[in-house]
Amino acid sequence: MSVTAARGFAASGVSAGIRPSGKPDVALVRSLTPAVGSAMWTTNRVLAAPVLVSQRHLALAEPQAVVVNAGVANAATGRAGEDDASATAEQVASLLALRPEEVVVLSTGVIGPRLPMEKLAGGIEHAAAALSSGGGPAAAEAILTTDGGPKTAVAQSDGFAVGGMAKGAGMIHPCLATMLAVVTTDYPLGPGECDAFLRPAVEESFNRISVDGDCSTNDAVVLLANGAAGVERSSALDERFARALGEVCADLARQIVADGEGATVVLEIRVSGASSPAEAQAIAKRVATSPLVKTAAFGRDPNWGRVLAAAGSAPWNGGFARLDPERLAVSFDGIPVFADGSPTGQVPELAGAACSIALDLGLGTGEAAYLASDLSYDYVKLNAEYTT
Amino acid sequence: MSVTAARGFAASGVSAGIRPSGKPDVALVRSLTPAVGSAMWTTNRVLAAPVLVSQRHLALAEPQAVVVNAGVANAATGRAGEDDASATAEQVASLLALRPEEVVVLSTGVIGPRLPMEKLAGGIEHAAAALSSGGGPAAAEAILTTDGGPKTAVAQSDGFAVGGMAKGAGMIHPCLATMLAVVTTDYPLGPGECDAFLRPAVEESFNRISVDGDCSTNDAVVLLANGAAGVERSSALDERFARALGEVCADLARQIVADGEGATVVLEIRVSGASSPAEAQAIAKRVATSPLVKTAAFGRDPNWGRVLAAAGSAPWNGGFARLDPERLAVSFDGIPVFADGSPTGQVPELAGAACSIALDLGLGTGEAAYLASDLSYDYVKLNAEYTT
Repeated sequence: MSVTAARGFAASGVSAGIRPSGKPDVALVRSLTPAVGSAMWTTNRVLAAPVLVSQRHLALAEPQAVVVNAGVANAATGRAGEDDASATAEQVASLLALRPEEVVVLSTGVIGPRLPMEKLAGGIEHAAAALSSGGGPAAAEAILTTDGGPKTAVAQSDGFAVGGMAKGAGMIHPCLATMLAVVTTDYPLGPGECDAFLRPAVEESFNRISVDGDCSTNDAVVLLANGAAGVERSSALDERFARALGEVCADLARQIVADGEGATVVLEIRVSGASSPAEAQAIAKRVATSPLVKTAAFGRDPNWGRVLAAAGSAPWNGGFARLDPERLAVSFDGIPVFADGSPTGQVPELAGAACSIALDLGLGTGEAAYLASDLSYDYVKLNAEYTT
Repeated sequence: MSVTAARGFAASGVSAGIRPSGKPDVALVRSLTPAVGSAMWTTNRVLAAPVLVSQRHLALAEPQAVVVNAGVANAATGRAGEDDASATAEQVASLLALRPEEVVVLSTGVIGPRLPMEKLAGGIEHAAAALSSGGGPAAAEAILTTDGGPKTAVAQSDGFAVGGMAKGAGMIHPCLATMLAVVTTDYPLGPGECDAFLRPAVEESFNRISVDGDCSTNDAVVLLANGAAGVERSSALDERFARALGEVCADLARQIVADGEGATVVLEIRVSGASSPAEAQAIAKRVATSPLVKTAAFGRDPNWGRVLAAAGSAPWNGGFARLDPERLAVSFDGIPVFADGSPTGQVPELAGAACSIALDLGLGTGEAAYLASDLSYDYVKLNAEYTT
């Protein structure tokens, strides 16, 4: 059900001819009743034009609609690209009787080229006409690039719903590695309240995954909340909403990793016993992004030596996160491989599409988890063979 | 001539049977006259036993000899591993009439297993007997693992010589990715003076290369200086010595990158115009370690979009290094591909075994350079197919 699982939302997905394959490439999501919302953006210093324009819009108004195009990222396109993104928002606003600043614009695709504005305008016209409360799945299809398939997630609880769609890192054209997610809910939130729920949910999900450690110019997560569920708010219900939102984000994030470029296995890195939560995160991230750990995972090699070497060199505070090999315990899929400063001698059998690597540092109470894909021949193929 | 290019040094390399292939695996280097020296070590939190033992030795005495074994890294081996490294130093000291703390011990190979002490002791005995002033090339062979070949460099100037040998990241066994270098000189330096020359030379060479961004538990660079050249010191000559040392380190570092796992091209990343030198370095390093940039290089794709995305997300000071796309200029092999906030439309032809990527940030005077290998099928093959 995707972004139309919650009441009071309509969506659509159409083919505008931006993607050479002719696959759907324009998605529209809108709230049918006044909504509030917020977004989190890539922190890359090189921001795509739609990111710059949408950030300005969100500073001025609560978002009521999101328009997404796939095929062209509208990044590194200068002022002209910003004008294109603004014109896109103006067209959507005029078709949906909104103000331009109530429209969030997202793009994913090749870095460098300008948007084909005529094709895009035609697609938006069709998408606006096709908006329906059953359009969530079509929208989820139209934001993909070379993802293996659509990524949607829904959580329902106590009379309200949270639904989302996402796209991950598939790459057929060069420079295309955008993570986009749109999440809607009919839970009642007030103006300015979305951010406090979205931030922790994103922090524990989309900010805890790594396909290749690269950070795109277009990454975005958008939340719209319209209160159409008609439930009575309470702090207990707020907590259930936060949990539902967290589940939807975590579900989408896991789907992105499982469908990562060339991925054959999802690695779950769990760090506990670190001196601080920040150090736990630094170590989990370092292990999750280590090419040596990721190639070993592709080879189904329980290579704890590489895990140790990565964990021991996790950037933190100008140096490396604290770690004492004498206190460190490492296990693969629950089987201890290193403890008390020495190998245990056990050799886990790795197989299948998931593997958990747990590190207990024995220093404190800091914890963190990270999801990562492995590094395979297909990752190299996808990223090396399609040249400009 | 390797580590015996400078006068007053002897070296040897022998097969002790530690490497299953039977290839040479024990190297010995000694100064024939009293020498001074220093070393720089991996900053990984997980330090191999020989690193711990050698650090203690260097705190007590000036080093007179270096013993290296390949095949077993003696890392993650606990107290027993440290005892093995100490016993190795004691054996070398007794054979060469030195004190144990005058011996530096280096190991490279598989993480986890204990050293085969009987084989190693036999090898050291042979190596001590084989020491000769023509033994530099044999020593350079005996420190390799699956490097494509030996790496040596020599600089001669004003009556003195600097000679070095190194090994890089070849990986046939898991967890084997050590960078080792031993450099000798007959230039006269006093006790405690080596460090001031070694640090900047390493900073500009070995600390500016990246094969895969992983940092080993055993990395080490050792400098021995015995003054046997008999030249008169002066500040002008000190400068020439510093330059010669820098050249030898840079030469060895470049050989390591060119022979990196699966490498088909050496990327030279040059950043200028950064707000500070530290930010220039952060950006150069981020571009040099980006899997997307490195796979594009393997595909000979002048993919400036990926360079921009990487440069815009270079970790610095808790955030990202400063970069303004409007002021950024990027070129491949001297051909401008991005300037004034927009693509130039030029598409460089990449071919051959070297490629330079230059980024001028237009913000300040910070500069930095980095050498990197590409990310190829063979990198994945080498690191995935050989399982424990």
